Amino acid sequence: MSGSKGTEYVLEPYGHGGDRWTAAGRFGIAPGDWLDFSANINPLGPPPQAIEALREGIGAIVNYPDPGHRELKRALSDKLGVEEDRLLIGNGAAECIALALSGLETRKVGVIAPCFSEYAQLAKDHGAEVLTVVASEDRDYRADPDQLRELMREVDLLFVGHPNNPTGLTYPLDELREIASMAERYSTYVVVDEAFVDFIPEERRATLLPELQRFPRVILLHSMTKFYAIPGLRLGYAIAAPDLVRRMARKQVTWSVNGLALLAGQACLRPGVADYERRTRGLIATERAYLRSEIDTRLGWRTWPGEANFLLVRLAEPWTASLLQEALGPRGVMIRSCAMYEGLTAGDVRIAVRGRADNEKLLAAFEEADLERRGLERRNPGGGGR
Amino acid sequence: MSGSKGTEYVLEPYGHGGDRWTAAGRFGIAPGDWLDFSANINPLGPPPQAIEALREGIGAIVNYPDPGHRELKRALSDKLGVEEDRLLIGNGAAECIALALSGLETRKVGVIAPCFSEYAQLAKDHGAEVLTVVASEDRDYRADPDQLRELMREVDLLFVGHPNNPTGLTYPLDELREIASMAERYSTYVVVDEAFVDFIPEERRATLLPELQRFPRVILLHSMTKFYAIPGLRLGYAIAAPDLVRRMARKQVTWSVNGLALLAGQACLRPGVADYERRTRGLIATERAYLRSEIDTRLGWRTWPGEANFLLVRLAEPWTASLLQEALGPRGVMIRSCAMYEGLTAGDVRIAVRGRADNEKLLAAFEEADLERRGLERRNPGGGGR
Repeated sequence: MSGSKGTEYVLEPYGHGGDRWTAAGRFGIAPGDWLDFSANINPLGPPPQAIEALREGIGAIVNYPDPGHRELKRALSDKLGVEEDRLLIGNGAAECIALALSGLETRKVGVIAPCFSEYAQLAKDHGAEVLTVVASEDRDYRADPDQLRELMREVDLLFVGHPNNPTGLTYPLDELREIASMAERYSTYVVVDEAFVDFIPEERRATLLPELQRFPRVILLHSMTKFYAIPGLRLGYAIAAPDLVRRMARKQVTWSVNGLALLAGQACLRPGVADYERRTRGLIATERAYLRSEIDTRLGWRTWPGEANFLLVRLAEPWTASLLQEALGPRGVMIRSCAMYEGLTAGDVRIAVRGRADNEKLLAAFEEADLERRGLERRNPGGGGR
Repeated sequence: MSGSKGTEYVLEPYGHGGDRWTAAGRFGIAPGDWLDFSANINPLGPPPQAIEALREGIGAIVNYPDPGHRELKRALSDKLGVEEDRLLIGNGAAECIALALSGLETRKVGVIAPCFSEYAQLAKDHGAEVLTVVASEDRDYRADPDQLRELMREVDLLFVGHPNNPTGLTYPLDELREIASMAERYSTYVVVDEAFVDFIPEERRATLLPELQRFPRVILLHSMTKFYAIPGLRLGYAIAAPDLVRRMARKQVTWSVNGLALLAGQACLRPGVADYERRTRGLIATERAYLRSEIDTRLGWRTWPGEANFLLVRLAEPWTASLLQEALGPRGVMIRSCAMYEGLTAGDVRIAVRGRADNEKLLAAFEEADLERRGLERRNPGGGGR
């Protein structure tokens, strides 16, 4: 979906990070040559099992994909301990969102700003009215219970990001349960978007998954593209009560999930991938902490204690997100502006957590850009006329 | 979409051919071991250039696909001689159909039975009313001008298959022009589904493409999955006036077209693929004629003079489509029942045109099944009680 607000989009004319084609056009660096901190993808790359499955299975493109996604559902059911009829496979989490909106025929949709822009965008595209509550910075951008109660009285579907994008922040389990209970009370569907939840170690992960049977109006949304680093293939899924899954599936265009995505997804669910999963969680936790502390000490910019593979960063004035994008572009570094997120500021950006070498390059690029700006300020202390 | 009519579906519980998983479950033959005449895919397989591009470009799955499909649009624009802003890239032709219905906000949709089931299915899913005219067998299942005029007065979007699925029959260019002119007169959009038109040699191909500027309400629909044998990847496109393309694109879920589909699609459009295209058209023309004549002489079943890579076949009584599917299943051969198509009969099937060796196997399986049935009849002349 194209962004349509008044904000200037340096790198996000389509409303999202990871758009190397726009970056290439703007800064004259080929799409393949960017150091991309604007998309939140596992820096380890896909599990070797998935690459192997694709290399071996490339011939499968001559066949239509299974419209019933049967093998992937079976593998997911085994791994998650969830019945197959509670699973909906989608062309990325984005298609699952669209299917929830169309399948459940929602007319009024609630979002908690700041949050993933597709919630409101897709809701509007489906003809729904969007009601927004802006969460307070004091509560780390989580809606408070009173705000949520009022919103849930009004809407027939609420989106909750957990971890939320672009803040990376999560809700405690008791708050998730309270939201799920309110869903029953007010006859509202709740989509808990867990697209980034896999990055949280299982022992620390708050999720309604084990108790989903108690909450027939809750839909958990998962992405396989971020954690398993296969965004080019498109693969996500929803977990919900069987009747909700049926209603969503009825709106799905046949074969919307391609055959190689199914193949790679099945490979990612093999038991042998557990080691890759552990290494990913370890790497992200270490590097996220490192980035936070270095950004604080070397640049004095603010970050939040997110739990996903990205960080929300508030730049020090006079930096704005687009000024920093313009400064980093010629250096081949992409970051995501958050200036267009309701509830955030023109000085907010989101950066992915990558491996140490890349993170060092990002920090160096930040420092260089910052020094350059200070140098310009010293040479030209009056600034632009005021 | 699941089929939902009362007909018994042996192999098409999802409403389409090519479902090897259902066939596997029913006949105990692994999904990879079928001789599949139920899906209409180029028997040459994908062009080597596409396979090569996939093998080399598999690493691209770690990046989000270009949400603007810019490189593929540029390549298509060059090949077709059509401006880029007249092109919409979709996750298969099926997504393009869905985007036409949602983007143009159609309330009443016209179809000419028998035709591709997704027209009506997707229209209903989008909340539109479906008006059907049943074309006469005498006119080779093409609607006559009076029927079309009445239908176009009523509906705001009409689907025309050209070649039509499952008949394989085409409209002459002057009839297409008349339909396009009526579209203007009655303010109706017309989707001319040319998903199989590439199988017709260019010098014999009737298409409105070169005169599309004169017909701002006509949308041409193309598939790249059938001719280039990449149905597992999902790729199609629509050609229409820029304002229609914009309205359709607004409803598209971001990244619905995956990165490997874009990569393979670009490779299929390279000039070097022209030889593969010529060979495909030659092979299909030869084998289609061969199948028609052999089916006539060896089985006495009726076929129609289709121009696509499939044939509509009317079995002789007492065969029905599902009886023949049941007889061929244990032999590892899949064909498409057409019993559920409005306007056709319980004895109609669709078979793909494949290479000579496979076609011989199909004909042999037909003959064996037919002999077996006659043998049973001889041994048990009274049949099942009447």
